[in-house]
Amino acid sequence: MNEALEPQTNSAQPHVIIVGAGFGGLAAARALKDAPVHVLLLDRTNHHVFQPLLYQVATAMLAPSEIASPIREVLRKQRNATVALLEVTRIEADRRQVFFSYLDGEERSLPYDYLILATGVQQSYFGHDEFAPFAPGLKSITDAEAIRAKLLKAFEIAEIEVDPAQHRDLLTFVLVGAGPTGVEMAGAIADMVRGMLKSDFRRVDPRSARIILIEGGPRILPAFSERLSRKAHARLTRMGVEIRTNAPVEHVNAEGVIVGGERIASRTVLWTAGVTPSPAAQWLKAEADRAGRVRVLPDLSVPGRPEIFVVGDTASLDQDGKPLPGVAQVAMQQGRYVGRSIAGRVAGQAPTPPFRYFDKGNMAVIGRNFAILEAGRVRLSGLVAWLAWAAIHIAFLPQAGNRLMVFTQWAWSYITKQGGARLILEPRIDAAKVSGTKP
Amino acid sequence: MNEALEPQTNSAQPHVIIVGAGFGGLAAARALKDAPVHVLLLDRTNHHVFQPLLYQVATAMLAPSEIASPIREVLRKQRNATVALLEVTRIEADRRQVFFSYLDGEERSLPYDYLILATGVQQSYFGHDEFAPFAPGLKSITDAEAIRAKLLKAFEIAEIEVDPAQHRDLLTFVLVGAGPTGVEMAGAIADMVRGMLKSDFRRVDPRSARIILIEGGPRILPAFSERLSRKAHARLTRMGVEIRTNAPVEHVNAEGVIVGGERIASRTVLWTAGVTPSPAAQWLKAEADRAGRVRVLPDLSVPGRPEIFVVGDTASLDQDGKPLPGVAQVAMQQGRYVGRSIAGRVAGQAPTPPFRYFDKGNMAVIGRNFAILEAGRVRLSGLVAWLAWAAIHIAFLPQAGNRLMVFTQWAWSYITKQGGARLILEPRIDAAKVSGTKP
Repeated sequence: MNEALEPQTNSAQPHVIIVGAGFGGLAAARALKDAPVHVLLLDRTNHHVFQPLLYQVATAMLAPSEIASPIREVLRKQRNATVALLEVTRIEADRRQVFFSYLDGEERSLPYDYLILATGVQQSYFGHDEFAPFAPGLKSITDAEAIRAKLLKAFEIAEIEVDPAQHRDLLTFVLVGAGPTGVEMAGAIADMVRGMLKSDFRRVDPRSARIILIEGGPRILPAFSERLSRKAHARLTRMGVEIRTNAPVEHVNAEGVIVGGERIASRTVLWTAGVTPSPAAQWLKAEADRAGRVRVLPDLSVPGRPEIFVVGDTASLDQDGKPLPGVAQVAMQQGRYVGRSIAGRVAGQAPTPPFRYFDKGNMAVIGRNFAILEAGRVRLSGLVAWLAWAAIHIAFLPQAGNRLMVFTQWAWSYITKQGGARLILEPRIDAAKVSGTKP
Repeated sequence: MNEALEPQTNSAQPHVIIVGAGFGGLAAARALKDAPVHVLLLDRTNHHVFQPLLYQVATAMLAPSEIASPIREVLRKQRNATVALLEVTRIEADRRQVFFSYLDGEERSLPYDYLILATGVQQSYFGHDEFAPFAPGLKSITDAEAIRAKLLKAFEIAEIEVDPAQHRDLLTFVLVGAGPTGVEMAGAIADMVRGMLKSDFRRVDPRSARIILIEGGPRILPAFSERLSRKAHARLTRMGVEIRTNAPVEHVNAEGVIVGGERIASRTVLWTAGVTPSPAAQWLKAEADRAGRVRVLPDLSVPGRPEIFVVGDTASLDQDGKPLPGVAQVAMQQGRYVGRSIAGRVAGQAPTPPFRYFDKGNMAVIGRNFAILEAGRVRLSGLVAWLAWAAIHIAFLPQAGNRLMVFTQWAWSYITKQGGARLILEPRIDAAKVSGTKP
């Protein structure tokens, strides 16, 4: 037990613990705003990340704080919600306890009446964890800053590198996986070398960089219609991106990748391929689908545990015979649904009808001025889709401050073609060995 | 030799190497814009830091990228300048060579005709390096992010901490040294607990935090007139900051500080006290003053080495019997002077008159709406000084993009009383041990 997190008043009210402050967890917390419950939202970082724009941090367009919002600032006015920076270690569903490691490392627990798991996904190398050190993925702000440093350093090193073979490898960028992240990153890197970096080097011509997008399947952006996928393919190609489809990656190491038997030498390989669910299913000892996501009932509860709900990327639910996709919209709608269900149950109302996902559409952006958009029967590509993409993404940022700063940065970058946050930040060099060039 | 950095054309033109892209180094590079020379600017980071606003990154007001400018972006249009991300290790003045560690760790060198050392200062613990792990200083963006995380985490831990004694220590913030950095940090932390953090916690009242500013000397801000120093003192006191003057710190460890025999328990001690010059004097085997700064001639060259100049915080020069202060204005004016001197010498002009510092004045800000300002006979304090401070700092940011983003962020924060970048960013948790709450 951790008394500090126990509610200080009205402790007769039900305790709702939410684990994870991504799109699902935050939506659930907000939906419980007016319910007579204590909400406790646990996350292992202090910020909610607006994942759809994370690639823009990785490509030096936006600053981390522009797309990350302090969770407790977002919920500041919601007086029934408490936020805690804690890492959950396990769950005892029979005793209705969530365990976490406390400050001193000791394991402590908190009781719940309702539990919402919104723990999302993490990077997956499909059984090849040995690729990880050579092909970082993009799931957190820290990941994005590391990728940004890796991309920018390739040009910095090339500028001082003498050996022409090294030069070529330094300016070869490989992206493994052509889903939205891979496509958006490839487009952003292509923009970067032709825009913001163009005139900044004296030895290196950033426009000579090779950007190679590798996809195991037959086409890029398989979640989109074939027509739009083809349009995106054509656009990327025109921007100088080399696309290889039907090309499963066989190996990744410090020298590059092997794909279809061919070795591509590269010092910068990025993993935009796969994700694996959080260990929520193991925590609950619940049935999981093949990917490891918790199979939930139509009301998003866990079979046999009506007080435990799983939402977002770590939940598995079919709709009309097809599994729901792992996108922000699903997580948000599921979070809101569960929040409302609990509020209804607490108020003694009749059970809510089963969850139903309303697909508002799907978008992907390919560099400046071009996006593809699918919503119902609407299929758009080009500048109009890009403007819609920009407007919708700004509107969905969780705080007004984020919206203002992202809008200002985008407008400025659009005019000047300069990026917003081209910093290489690395752990401080040990003060004792400082001999260098700046205070 | 590193051929990659050798000029590819006009190699008969003189080579000017500048080490350090702070205020002095950047000003020198810019002053050589139209001179028929090759400028090579070396720094061990990729960005110029606008030091006077670094405390605002440490207190979650501004984002790192708002006050840090990519060096090569700043010099993009200056075609005679090359920028390289390199760490200088030593200098052989007799052979006119600058040495640095190359990519493979091997030591390489570059020849120069003129050398400008603008290597600044680093944190100093006055012979007590054992304090360093417990009292971080503020010299780089990485430092600022670490302090930001430390400040914000104190409140996060307090929110989940049960033990009341721990609570008190967590909410006690000690700043060692009441120069401009200490004073500005203390004011910003006071603003933070009463503004942006005020309503964000459920157990902790951030306004109960103690902020203690410790100064070994008889008064805060000794560089200012006594009257303004008194005003700043009164303002800080009114904001709830406890100030202790004539209080040299005797010890710092994980439990807090000992000052004047008294132990102050604190989990957050920040070192805003001292700096020590870069090892430029050792590199040159040149005469140094007591602090370790290189004694330079009135033209800022090193005695016996008319081709080597030292500027900014790492140079020692008296004017009217008093040593020049270690401030940005001195560094900028010296950098510009040396750049122009070299341009003149290359053009065969008569030697320039000795360097003379023109003191444009001195400012310090104490929280929202209050600053003190001294310029010649003008002495101002309060809102007008604060507006002048804000306008001047925005104007002096090196890039238009920085100016726009800082202005937007300040205006927004002024209206909403919310900060701009409240992120706790830490090295990624090892993917293998991920068990937590977010993708």
